[in-house]
Amino acid sequence: MALIVQKFGGTSVANPERIRNVAKRVAKKYDQGDKMVVILSAMAGVTDSLLRLAGEMAETPDRREVDVLLATGEQTTAALLAITLKSMNYPAVSLLGFQAEVVTDCNYSNARIIDIGAHRIRELLDQQNIVVIAGFQGCDAQGNITTLGRGGSDTSAVAIAAALKADMCEIYTDVDGVYTADPNVCRKARKLDKISCEEMLEMASLGAKVLHIRSVEFALKHNVLVYVRSSFSEEEGTMLVNGNHDMERPVVSGITYSKNEARITLKGVPDQPGIAAKIFNAAADANINVDMIIQNTLAGGKTDLTFTVPKTEFKRALEVERKVVEEIGADNVLGDEGIAKVSVTGIGMKSHSGVASKMFSALAVENINIMMISTSEIRISCIIEEKKAELAVRTLHTAFGLDKE
Amino acid sequence: MALIVQKFGGTSVANPERIRNVAKRVAKKYDQGDKMVVILSAMAGVTDSLLRLAGEMAETPDRREVDVLLATGEQTTAALLAITLKSMNYPAVSLLGFQAEVVTDCNYSNARIIDIGAHRIRELLDQQNIVVIAGFQGCDAQGNITTLGRGGSDTSAVAIAAALKADMCEIYTDVDGVYTADPNVCRKARKLDKISCEEMLEMASLGAKVLHIRSVEFALKHNVLVYVRSSFSEEEGTMLVNGNHDMERPVVSGITYSKNEARITLKGVPDQPGIAAKIFNAAADANINVDMIIQNTLAGGKTDLTFTVPKTEFKRALEVERKVVEEIGADNVLGDEGIAKVSVTGIGMKSHSGVASKMFSALAVENINIMMISTSEIRISCIIEEKKAELAVRTLHTAFGLDKE
Repeated sequence: MALIVQKFGGTSVANPERIRNVAKRVAKKYDQGDKMVVILSAMAGVTDSLLRLAGEMAETPDRREVDVLLATGEQTTAALLAITLKSMNYPAVSLLGFQAEVVTDCNYSNARIIDIGAHRIRELLDQQNIVVIAGFQGCDAQGNITTLGRGGSDTSAVAIAAALKADMCEIYTDVDGVYTADPNVCRKARKLDKISCEEMLEMASLGAKVLHIRSVEFALKHNVLVYVRSSFSEEEGTMLVNGNHDMERPVVSGITYSKNEARITLKGVPDQPGIAAKIFNAAADANINVDMIIQNTLAGGKTDLTFTVPKTEFKRALEVERKVVEEIGADNVLGDEGIAKVSVTGIGMKSHSGVASKMFSALAVENINIMMISTSEIRISCIIEEKKAELAVRTLHTAFGLDKE
Repeated sequence: MALIVQKFGGTSVANPERIRNVAKRVAKKYDQGDKMVVILSAMAGVTDSLLRLAGEMAETPDRREVDVLLATGEQTTAALLAITLKSMNYPAVSLLGFQAEVVTDCNYSNARIIDIGAHRIRELLDQQNIVVIAGFQGCDAQGNITTLGRGGSDTSAVAIAAALKADMCEIYTDVDGVYTADPNVCRKARKLDKISCEEMLEMASLGAKVLHIRSVEFALKHNVLVYVRSSFSEEEGTMLVNGNHDMERPVVSGITYSKNEARITLKGVPDQPGIAAKIFNAAADANINVDMIIQNTLAGGKTDLTFTVPKTEFKRALEVERKVVEEIGADNVLGDEGIAKVSVTGIGMKSHSGVASKMFSALAVENINIMMISTSEIRISCIIEEKKAELAVRTLHTAFGLDKE
């Protein structure tokens, strides 16, 4: 008898018919003798329409109250699934965040889980109940309702699995696993049977969108076995394993890309100590996240400084830096929204050399110019022209031997 | 500086525009220096559509889970009003039932309030906040979410007003007060400035529909000053006062009617001890509420027995009693759905005689036949032909001098 946590995303509970399918899936597992905890997202589209409603009431809706509003989405699906299971004669009980003792900090809209009491969950499990928990929500120490940010139900699921020391955390979603590249871009993409948490972290942050990034951090930290699979088929999915497990390590596991960044260049910056600090403090003060940075020292005591920011912050960042340019006596500031970031990720890179040069060569063959480069231990990213992003993904996918046979 | 509880019904918060109007009304009172607690219903229609959704998932949805589902309705409006007030720069905080410590029994869908902690409400009021509370909901001692039944937000408001010892509980609704009769039936109906809780209780149970009946019981028991008024106008409404206040007591305050009952007659019942018990035990066992009862003793040791039941239970009641008729050897059973109950209510009846005879005479003049009569200390009700209900209301309204001048 295993203890299984199953999480179903918004598309998996988007309507009564799909909720019935989830109920059947849960019931089947329960019939096999497993103890079941089910975490649900809101119905697809509900969170957005609630946010629109809040936006009708206020330009900048109060974050505490937005969380109270958004929490109704998962409350609804949790109640509906419990109603369905009960009508099928299964013992089911729904719990909201506060009832499941999901204690978070009080950073509304983006709260972090501090602790999970799980006392009530365990009690209900001991009484043979299927425990249905509203994902995405918790409460702070004062009992205020909080939410965990976009995709937060994944984190709810992994955190609850960790607290219960569950045997497995199954994440049911609308994709059937993690692929070597986006199948919409790269026809030859293959589903991975396994992926390490470290790789998943790099890939999630690069836009793989399969799992909420904080859930992967949780899985890594608490050693939770996470299994990503589709709620619309019976196909096998992708298992997330900790990197220190004894697994075969491919040099490169996947190719990802993102078009969510823009590039800003400050030309002719005086090459003096403290200047870079001024430039990036200005961005930080305006709450703008800077990602990659490169600096080219020119002749004559001047440098060019280039960095990337989220596309949504591009205009604000340009304004901020225009002021800085005046202040520090640089020549001017240029912006470019037409860029993409293409990355190769693989835990095998730790012990293999030559990945970077293989990447650059492959891109060169296709005449794709590299504007910026950044690397981590298990990832290499290049900024290229936006319109060549898909070509780059396919090229690299083939170059690193990831194509389907 | 007064402490005011305001409650707004579903039509008053039916859309963003109306929620903004509620916010303005609340803000105005707050600006006058009053401490404000606001109780909200769900948007009009939301509770019904949630119930339909539950009905799609199960024929008889689990009551605990239905309460979890329904509670989202008031959670939504509470958050939206708080968002609106905050955007107008008023300090507002929403509280759900469990946060406001509205403790109920665990009779899901129809829970009764046992206690209101009000600790958090007081604390927030002391910090000058406008406290916005989701009506209709509470939680039991184990922390399960409960709801108070249809119209329960009225009860939430009055109970919270009682717990806080508020100076006034204002109930904003889509009618502008309590009338001497339904203005749709009786053109000459007048709005009452005051009405006693006792009269209101009689009138609520007879279909006046202005206030949830349990809220009136609460007001009576805890001596809460309740003021019913329209959220769509600035007109004065109706004040609910306790009967033992020193008020001018009209003999009759209002005429009400109801078409929600049906009549069942058992003919030729053997006139023996224990027979009536059999008849009404059968109804009770089938969970059928019996209202009025009359018995006519006939010659030859037989009686006719007539009683009324809710129209919704009529068919079931007929079936049940058909079996009883066979069992006890009565002649047969007859049913009649074409009836109405017309009532005159007035606390002055306690000290005035002649009300009944005046009522019967007025109906006789219009050729309205009286089939059954029942009375309480402050009410007389007659069962008449359904199609004559409106005529009877107008006739009695004039006869008792209630017409507008």
